[in-house]
Amino acid sequence: MEEAKGLVRRVHLVKFKDGTPPARIEEILKNYANLVNLIEPLKSWHMGKNVSIMNLDQGFTHVFEVTFESAEGLAEYADHPIHTEFSKQTRPHLDKVIVITYELTVFCT
Amino acid sequence: MEEAKGLVRRVHLVKFKDGTPPARIEEILKNYANLVNLIEPLKSWHMGKNVSIMNLDQGFTHVFEVTFESAEGLAEYADHPIHTEFSKQTRPHLDKVIVITYELTVFCT
Repeated sequence: MEEAKGLVRRVHLVKFKDGTPPARIEEILKNYANLVNLIEPLKSWHMGKNVSIMNLDQGFTHVFEVTFESAEGLAEYADHPIHTEFSKQTRPHLDKVIVITYELTVFCT
Repeated sequence: MEEAKGLVRRVHLVKFKDGTPPARIEEILKNYANLVNLIEPLKSWHMGKNVSIMNLDQGFTHVFEVTFESAEGLAEYADHPIHTEFSKQTRPHLDKVIVITYELTVFCT
């Protein structure tokens, strides 16, 4: 039986464009992390750099997780002008991105 | 400044093959979730079905997150015969999969 935990998560798999200066990437990470202080419905933010050796990563270099208490919270975040501006500044540096949104779920047997 | 939280997460984006019977998918989810009871280093397991409307999901239908206290824990899980058998039973039903492994990190400004 599936059991939702009431949290909504959006995960981004990102590959920055070759040639993006490391300092620019660092700045993007810093600004992205700071959204948790600026946009109330964003409850948690995590990132990670891919270290997989399985060769199933399609070249994606970073994962970003943003977590909300509800779909409404995510919608509010997505439309927030600070988020919109961040996305606009960041997009030109992305080679590719996959975005998946899901309700965080456990499966009780 | 980046700050690792000491946890290692592997995220799988999965698309099941068209035509996989829903009951078979349900059985896979149940068996997958149950690994948390069978393989000690696997500390948490979550899934979610993609509900994104951003059209950046490349057709992936499910996300799975498995989380460990260390890279050694992940390695032990990955090589565990129960996990190996689960993977072998599941792989034929997958249309495509992306796997990213990362140390769960926050970014302190």
